Amino acid sequence: MKAKGIKSIAVMTGGGDCPGLNAVIRAVTKTAINKFGLEVWGIEDGYLGLIEDRMRVLQYNDVSNILTVGGTILGSSNVANPFKHKVTVGKTTRTRDVSDDCVRNLKGNNIDALICIGGDGTMSSAAGFAKKGVVVMGVPKTIDNDLYGTDITFGFNTAVTTATEAIDKIHTTASSHHRVMIIEVMGRYAGWIALHAGVASGSDVVLLPEIPYHLDKICEFVLGRSKRGKRFSIVVVAEGAKEKGGKMVVAKKVAHSPDPIRLGGVANVLAGQINERTGLDCRAVVLGHVQRGGTPTPFDRVLATNFGNMAIKLLMKGIKGHLVVQKDGKLASIPLSRVAGKIKTVPRNHHLIRAALAVGTSFGV
Amino acid sequence: MKAKGIKSIAVMTGGGDCPGLNAVIRAVTKTAINKFGLEVWGIEDGYLGLIEDRMRVLQYNDVSNILTVGGTILGSSNVANPFKHKVTVGKTTRTRDVSDDCVRNLKGNNIDALICIGGDGTMSSAAGFAKKGVVVMGVPKTIDNDLYGTDITFGFNTAVTTATEAIDKIHTTASSHHRVMIIEVMGRYAGWIALHAGVASGSDVVLLPEIPYHLDKICEFVLGRSKRGKRFSIVVVAEGAKEKGGKMVVAKKVAHSPDPIRLGGVANVLAGQINERTGLDCRAVVLGHVQRGGTPTPFDRVLATNFGNMAIKLLMKGIKGHLVVQKDGKLASIPLSRVAGKIKTVPRNHHLIRAALAVGTSFGV
Amino acid sequence: MKAKGIKSIAVMTGGGDCPGLNAVIRAVTKTAINKFGLEVWGIEDGYLGLIEDRMRVLQYNDVSNILTVGGTILGSSNVANPFKHKVTVGKTTRTRDVSDDCVRNLKGNNIDALICIGGDGTMSSAAGFAKKGVVVMGVPKTIDNDLYGTDITFGFNTAVTTATEAIDKIHTTASSHHRVMIIEVMGRYAGWIALHAGVASGSDVVLLPEIPYHLDKICEFVLGRSKRGKRFSIVVVAEGAKEKGGKMVVAKKVAHSPDPIRLGGVANVLAGQINERTGLDCRAVVLGHVQRGGTPTPFDRVLATNFGNMAIKLLMKGIKGHLVVQKDGKLASIPLSRVAGKIKTVPRNHHLIRAALAVGTSFGV
Amino acid sequence: MKAKGIKSIAVMTGGGDCPGLNAVIRAVTKTAINKFGLEVWGIEDGYLGLIEDRMRVLQYNDVSNILTVGGTILGSSNVANPFKHKVTVGKTTRTRDVSDDCVRNLKGNNIDALICIGGDGTMSSAAGFAKKGVVVMGVPKTIDNDLYGTDITFGFNTAVTTATEAIDKIHTTASSHHRVMIIEVMGRYAGWIALHAGVASGSDVVLLPEIPYHLDKICEFVLGRSKRGKRFSIVVVAEGAKEKGGKMVVAKKVAHSPDPIRLGGVANVLAGQINERTGLDCRAVVLGHVQRGGTPTPFDRVLATNFGNMAIKLLMKGIKGHLVVQKDGKLASIPLSRVAGKIKTVPRNHHLIRAALAVGTSFGV
Repeated sequence: MKAKGIKSIAVMTGGGDCPGLNAVIRAVTKTAINKFGLEVWGIEDGYLGLIEDRMRVLQYNDVSNILTVGGTILGSSNVANPFKHKVTVGKTTRTRDVSDDCVRNLKGNNIDALICIGGDGTMSSAAGFAKKGVVVMGVPKTIDNDLYGTDITFGFNTAVTTATEAIDKIHTTASSHHRVMIIEVMGRYAGWIALHAGVASGSDVVLLPEIPYHLDKICEFVLGRSKRGKRFSIVVVAEGAKEKGGKMVVAKKVAHSPDPIRLGGVANVLAGQINERTGLDCRAVVLGHVQRGGTPTPFDRVLATNFGNMAIKLLMKGIKGHLVVQKDGKLASIPLSRVAGKIKTVPRNHHLIRAALAVGTSFGV
Repeated sequence: MKAKGIKSIAVMTGGGDCPGLNAVIRAVTKTAINKFGLEVWGIEDGYLGLIEDRMRVLQYNDVSNILTVGGTILGSSNVANPFKHKVTVGKTTRTRDVSDDCVRNLKGNNIDALICIGGDGTMSSAAGFAKKGVVVMGVPKTIDNDLYGTDITFGFNTAVTTATEAIDKIHTTASSHHRVMIIEVMGRYAGWIALHAGVASGSDVVLLPEIPYHLDKICEFVLGRSKRGKRFSIVVVAEGAKEKGGKMVVAKKVAHSPDPIRLGGVANVLAGQINERTGLDCRAVVLGHVQRGGTPTPFDRVLATNFGNMAIKLLMKGIKGHLVVQKDGKLASIPLSRVAGKIKTVPRNHHLIRAALAVGTSFGV
Repeated sequence: MKAKGIKSIAVMTGGGDCPGLNAVIRAVTKTAINKFGLEVWGIEDGYLGLIEDRMRVLQYNDVSNILTVGGTILGSSNVANPFKHKVTVGKTTRTRDVSDDCVRNLKGNNIDALICIGGDGTMSSAAGFAKKGVVVMGVPKTIDNDLYGTDITFGFNTAVTTATEAIDKIHTTASSHHRVMIIEVMGRYAGWIALHAGVASGSDVVLLPEIPYHLDKICEFVLGRSKRGKRFSIVVVAEGAKEKGGKMVVAKKVAHSPDPIRLGGVANVLAGQINERTGLDCRAVVLGHVQRGGTPTPFDRVLATNFGNMAIKLLMKGIKGHLVVQKDGKLASIPLSRVAGKIKTVPRNHHLIRAALAVGTSFGV
Repeated sequence: MKAKGIKSIAVMTGGGDCPGLNAVIRAVTKTAINKFGLEVWGIEDGYLGLIEDRMRVLQYNDVSNILTVGGTILGSSNVANPFKHKVTVGKTTRTRDVSDDCVRNLKGNNIDALICIGGDGTMSSAAGFAKKGVVVMGVPKTIDNDLYGTDITFGFNTAVTTATEAIDKIHTTASSHHRVMIIEVMGRYAGWIALHAGVASGSDVVLLPEIPYHLDKICEFVLGRSKRGKRFSIVVVAEGAKEKGGKMVVAKKVAHSPDPIRLGGVANVLAGQINERTGLDCRAVVLGHVQRGGTPTPFDRVLATNFGNMAIKLLMKGIKGHLVVQKDGKLASIPLSRVAGKIKTVPRNHHLIRAALAVGTSFGV
């Protein structure tokens, strides 16, 4: 495959849901058809559709009216990995490398290049395909904003907005009822959502995976507020936050459930602990999947449009095996190989942490 | 106390948080000052402030700019009951009737009438005060809309709106990722929020406390959808919904916590059970306190203004010991004694249930 | 045609845009198919499609995912009137009664009943068809809430919400910049939107078509606020409001435009007048079409679902020539003949006007 | 004055309203008190309060709960310029340089540094004060995002979000009623809001002040859509957009008004012109002041917090006469002297214009 000779591309979306996926699909498809006269294929349900050869040609009108719609018209699958595909025969499940089948399916449909919209896992496989000679372009997707190599990912602004609006609502209850409200937001390994939503909502305590907290410090802080007449506190906690010296709160298995389902994570544990130590009335709210869905914010629609547009333009310039990124305010790209297996966490001296500290926020340390 | 001679009133807010409390306080205060030249007192933290004689005169400007603000500027307390006030001496907690102290505090401040904004518990105490000769007017407050005697309560529309917007967001994820999403909304004894939010969001399954569900029926229904190509389902469940023959899912006690904190209720249990029986990917989201807070919707601001205004006008007409209500589209009032201890549940043949069934919604039966 | 023998129905939407149209179409279609096994036809572009025989069968899936979408999937047309259809031949335009063609088109497709979703104009034609023996059911639609016979129409709650949210935004600017902000909302003959949005936003002055205003009184009121230290005012004005003894502000014709386009109505005139008389900084905002569009509120989705469901159920009970209504909190219907040519205006002693006066609102009189 | 010796600062807000002003005031005040133990003064009504010596000490609690509130607790004034202060004596108005009075007022209150939050006009005066030896720090504020020297200003994201949400609402009406909807957004000299809201809403035509349009091209484009079955179009137009070879549509003077009040600008004119040339049904909506108000988005709250925090930190580092900026994704500052009199317009080859063109948007050329 040669970039210059690209006549047909395919696009797929992998991993968890993220507002703006449809906006990228739309920008990719419209740019490809409008500007370069390409044929565009949509692969169904992420890599699963690539493995199973489920893909269809996307017409211009197929991507009309999807800019503002959450989710992905292509479907996604969280688990599919073409290099370690799970195959269940009888009672045993084995993993098999079916990446060659994928390459064959692309060739069978005369597809010259593949655009993979996804997060860490999706990019690892994309890098694998690049090594196999497939012309690949990655588009970074994660509400957590923890993908290495890019300053920002679409979906993040929407997630922060959803989380902040929820905390805004909870604020008045905390204040009227003199409570410590503990709101758990997404972010298993990086605390970007908690940090931004915490600052945006003027929360009192912000707990990040990157800064293990001291329970004592938190209790001291909320009691201190109480003594100064502020008889309530708002605590925002990333799901991956953990106590200094402790570990991430493990999801408990629900009775009747074969898979572990998160049943009360760190927010619930903290509510119990803070209540026990301070005697203050504590309540936990776990925002959960609300953060992953819904209409993308205008910011994310613009970013997703830029990313989708850039992906096609780079491919047509002959660039391949790269990830579209925004770096220092500018659109660019970096090799997928440099991204694989890395994560972008919040640096302890990040300017927003310093600003938050300056306006009186506690990070529980 | 004689209604005709009312020169000074007091207002208090009791029970859980509810959008529109401030709007009622504003309407009460402005109507009392503007139209009748009364003095208005605000009692702090519900009945607790009445017991402890914590109250202050409210000026016109004190209630400026609070119409759109969630919570209550007076504060509230969930637990205070002047007829069974908990008093802790050393390690023992006893209940004591301190209602006479309350009456004395009102008289001490020359307060001629008391407006109690609250739910079931608040109205029971209000009825008690009415029996003791206090000139009382109740204003119904509950996001659950389950207060007997009134067709609608302020806060309900806001709660339904918040719940529906959350379900809207989750919808796209369910659809993109082929999941059964189970969203738990408030409603321990009545399913009004679940019913309205379920219909408003076009949810597939709606589970109410009033209609015990069959797990089999739910599983059958979501599998049926799956077979017809609808590879996802939205289940809205009231926190008080229970299985046919079963009981309400009991809140589990969190380690370290003296008080039971709800740690995964019916939505989490259902997610496990439906997954086990159908093999479908299931996720639970518990909306929680988000439903109780935030700016009231315009609908609730109008309703709260009407209620607050009506409370004063009724008092000045000499009516006492009543609850302000909206009945068949009209403002009215009924004796507090007729309300006490009753709850307004969803009738099984409610027109909205029938409409929901007609458009294909399952109630799990 | 006999109601009992109804096997196939058609549905159309007429008149201006209104949030909830799709929700009614969905409820009509799903109820008809689900509950009664009927065939459902969708007529395109209101009566125009009926005249031109543009209609198609609606399948169950055609109405999936439209509950939350503004507008109408069927299209609408503001001007079509089958009894006075405008036909242009050469340079002359005449009106012709094409209602018999419409009846023939319905029969040609074996359609047994017609559901007309629309406002005043649509219902007049619907009443005309009823007289001709067509089995007709009307569903009331207007954001203005001024349709006679029903207490409430879907779309109204959404319009009030949109208007109120806009006024909320403008509030802070008025306050920070010490301005008189004049916001024009829809309502040419009835002031329901202005009244509700005015009360919900805590506006200072509310001007309705039903209560001609005195410019002096308005100026006096805003100057009075200014003197009491409230250096700003919010004026909400219905587009049809007029000065005592004056008439509705006529839309000015824009250069280059064959049709008159509203170019600054009453809000702009008032801004000029109030500024001239008081010297205060005045600004006008005309909300316009924003009020007609967008996702319907949960309240309107529920109401629209009830209305659509009711329309089919009434038809199947043998009722015809009626309008579905909500009266005193209950779903019902009344003969179309009783509705024609009437409008529901705001009574001067409406309880919400009295409540607004009590909390200090001026109606400019 | 020596930066190292700063013990007391003053903060003021100038120019038009902008969401996030309070967030900056809060960050400035909290950082100053918390981190550096400074005294903080709030100047009322922009430079007017500085001229008239109206200022007050801000306590920590004065800035509690203002993060999410639109407007400015300090008040603003659009017109005040201390170097050309308008003084009216009898019937004549003259301008006078009262900047020395301002300096005297600062000294009189022992204020060591001045933080000016504002736009172009405010910064010109700030630069003037810097020349006079006042320790000044500017914080850029404009919803238009056209301030030179910074990539982004707070308020812009909120304005774009408000505009986009309005266009989203209008979209369904356009589509249902087959109309050309023309939405006028703010932006007299730069089209940033129109460009971003246009892309975010998937608008069909976007008209910027920087790219004079050809009426023919616009008409051709919307007719072309109509012929392809897209019987509607969305046109977003910045208030300062003008026809190729023409000039900005001048605001017309309203009868009775001493000051010119914009009465139908470019959107209304375009509606008339497009209708005349194409025969399509056209409607104009002028969003106006709604864009300047309301709760800032989480993005703007974070940005405003960063800016306010940075302003104090720079001052305490001894930097003065600068403007806080965000450049290439990083917080920084540049000399006020480099900013004065310049404006940041949209470059014709801006990547977002190119992306918009690629997805099929017309810029009317």
